Amino acid sequence: MWRDLKPIGRNPGSGGYRRFAWTGADAECRAWFEEQARARGLAYEVDRNGNQWAWLGDPADGDAVVTGSHLDSVPDGGAFDGPLGVVSSFAALDELRSRNVQFSKPLAIVNFGDEEGARFGLACVGSRLAAGQLTVEQAHRLRDADGVSLPEAMEAAGFDPDVIGADPERLARIGAFVELHVEQGRALDLSGDRVGLASAIWPHGRWRFDFRGEANHAGTTRLVDRRDPMLSYAETVLTARREAQLASAVATFGKISVEPNGVNAIPSLVRGWLDSRAADQASLDTVVSGIEQAAREHADAHGVELDVVRESFTPVVEFDHALRDELARILGTDTDLKVPVLGTGAGHDAGILSGTIPTAMLFVRNPTGVSHSPAEYATEDDCVAGVLALADVLEGLARR
Amino acid sequence: MWRDLKPIGRNPGSGGYRRFAWTGADAECRAWFEEQARARGLAYEVDRNGNQWAWLGDPADGDAVVTGSHLDSVPDGGAFDGPLGVVSSFAALDELRSRNVQFSKPLAIVNFGDEEGARFGLACVGSRLAAGQLTVEQAHRLRDADGVSLPEAMEAAGFDPDVIGADPERLARIGAFVELHVEQGRALDLSGDRVGLASAIWPHGRWRFDFRGEANHAGTTRLVDRRDPMLSYAETVLTARREAQLASAVATFGKISVEPNGVNAIPSLVRGWLDSRAADQASLDTVVSGIEQAAREHADAHGVELDVVRESFTPVVEFDHALRDELARILGTDTDLKVPVLGTGAGHDAGILSGTIPTAMLFVRNPTGVSHSPAEYATEDDCVAGVLALADVLEGLARR
Repeated sequence: MWRDLKPIGRNPGSGGYRRFAWTGADAECRAWFEEQARARGLAYEVDRNGNQWAWLGDPADGDAVVTGSHLDSVPDGGAFDGPLGVVSSFAALDELRSRNVQFSKPLAIVNFGDEEGARFGLACVGSRLAAGQLTVEQAHRLRDADGVSLPEAMEAAGFDPDVIGADPERLARIGAFVELHVEQGRALDLSGDRVGLASAIWPHGRWRFDFRGEANHAGTTRLVDRRDPMLSYAETVLTARREAQLASAVATFGKISVEPNGVNAIPSLVRGWLDSRAADQASLDTVVSGIEQAAREHADAHGVELDVVRESFTPVVEFDHALRDELARILGTDTDLKVPVLGTGAGHDAGILSGTIPTAMLFVRNPTGVSHSPAEYATEDDCVAGVLALADVLEGLARR
Repeated sequence: MWRDLKPIGRNPGSGGYRRFAWTGADAECRAWFEEQARARGLAYEVDRNGNQWAWLGDPADGDAVVTGSHLDSVPDGGAFDGPLGVVSSFAALDELRSRNVQFSKPLAIVNFGDEEGARFGLACVGSRLAAGQLTVEQAHRLRDADGVSLPEAMEAAGFDPDVIGADPERLARIGAFVELHVEQGRALDLSGDRVGLASAIWPHGRWRFDFRGEANHAGTTRLVDRRDPMLSYAETVLTARREAQLASAVATFGKISVEPNGVNAIPSLVRGWLDSRAADQASLDTVVSGIEQAAREHADAHGVELDVVRESFTPVVEFDHALRDELARILGTDTDLKVPVLGTGAGHDAGILSGTIPTAMLFVRNPTGVSHSPAEYATEDDCVAGVLALADVLEGLARR
């Protein structure tokens, strides 16, 4: 199963994956999902927002137990972020069948579309649309770097963009959603545990900093006559690191766009994107306002204009306490795993859905701690431990 | 004449020009040149490297007086850099005809191809090839950002890339080359002069700094676990400014390329291009070695690897002293202009040719001092002063 999925969308240069929403690689991943569903005799369906579902039992019965994750990737992402959760879901179902477990509730496996937001710049589009956290109008305005709109991309992939939108009836069928995910840090590696449970997702946001100066010739313009936005940008990058350090938060400038971006031209515009996250809202506010204020000073010092736009923001997500306690009980009673509870700085479809339905997350140890990179990793033994933990959880939730 | 050229390759968004070598805009500029040549009854020819020539008199007579510049532009460049020299050449010829000047030497106007290097990353390709300063093998290896090679681009534009190469016989016909150019700084504006003469072109070069770190998730990777090349890059940008200031030189990071360039990804690679120039070789060496050494320290501090590659280098160019003195004499005797002599940080085809034939340059005042930007400017009065000065120079050189 894993073997068939591995080559799809792989960039031979980096060894990383490029599985962007509504591209050919995405279509191949989707075909793989449908095949896995049909091979197990599950009822396959695609919802109005392009999310894929594989059902065991009648969805209309309600109180369903759903697991799954996503198959798309960031640019040159690793093999585990997303796919581990989907593959483990099918494997857990196989395990439960081999245990001859009988379910009193319907069960489903889901692949949410466009979780990473690598193409259109907004993460978790599939689950946001379903949960009504992204309006149809907002979704229709999304464009990729080539100017292709989300509706155009969906249509090119054979989907109808006119039917997207909130899907409360579908979500109302779900009693609990559990997402298994490779850990995107080293907490489990440091504590020596194979599997962990999520407590909360840190609040996080994305801010665009537009530093506007004056394009000029790099060879003939005296330093004193320059209004060089690259200097203000560079100072702001260093400030962001210091502010994050002071607040035990994270702040990153990882994306940049420069105009005209010529070797012998002082830029007219340097556009940098800040990603920042912290354990709580107050810390995040402190970090971001500190960076913004310093950036304004850096801009003024070079005669540069600055606009700061908050492009997205997700408040802190506390996963359902009752469900988490139940998972801890199931895993603590039925297995010899210690299951530490940890927070995470990463957004997930589970975080989006947690506003609508009880959700929980399982993390599988990642010895490199690296994520969104080909170096992301989980040992085979830890993957198996994750599958067994997920199987125990599904059994405990669906058989009761 | 100026009116026909103005709309070609103009970007309505910025008001700047995008006339890149071997594109449609370039072809339109070339058609304009041929039209101007034919309208004046000049003998039109395109040499093996795609440079355009318009001859008055028989080239075979030798000791020709040649003037001209280029029509291509940097991304979103201004209207004057290049075109002012070509337009002024035709206008100066018109002026000399109205004066009924008889020439004892052949005269020519030239449009050198791909002066700015905006598409293939190397400046002055047309004159470099002709002067043998760029080999055919090197030229064939040039590629644009879309991976299109120079031979492919030439072929697509209807030119034969197999015949390019050094053209000593053509250059041997030329006794003197004079290029008129808009000033790319504020020296004439500060001194209150309309027209100036070039003394020398500062030595300059381009260096590529590749900072390689580790791609990772911007939300989940602890600051201490990061190897973020953006931080080393930012520190190096600020160092470059300081080093240039200390040496009264210029140093600019105006072009950057980031991988994977995702908002929520710590970059694996930040590639920045340094452009640096100074009045003499020793100062330039001091600046660049200072930046490189500091960059290595900045990289080490963040666990980042650094490669520095010198992509191009042009030593100091001293224009022919005898020719410059003759121009100063002609302009000093025949006009009431003061003609100050100034150095420049910008490269020019005249600089490339100065190794082979006597060359000189005239600068026209640019009140904004801005260059490589739509804000680049020369008043109509100053443009006329430039044309008259060029006409006087051509008359003085070709009639004697």
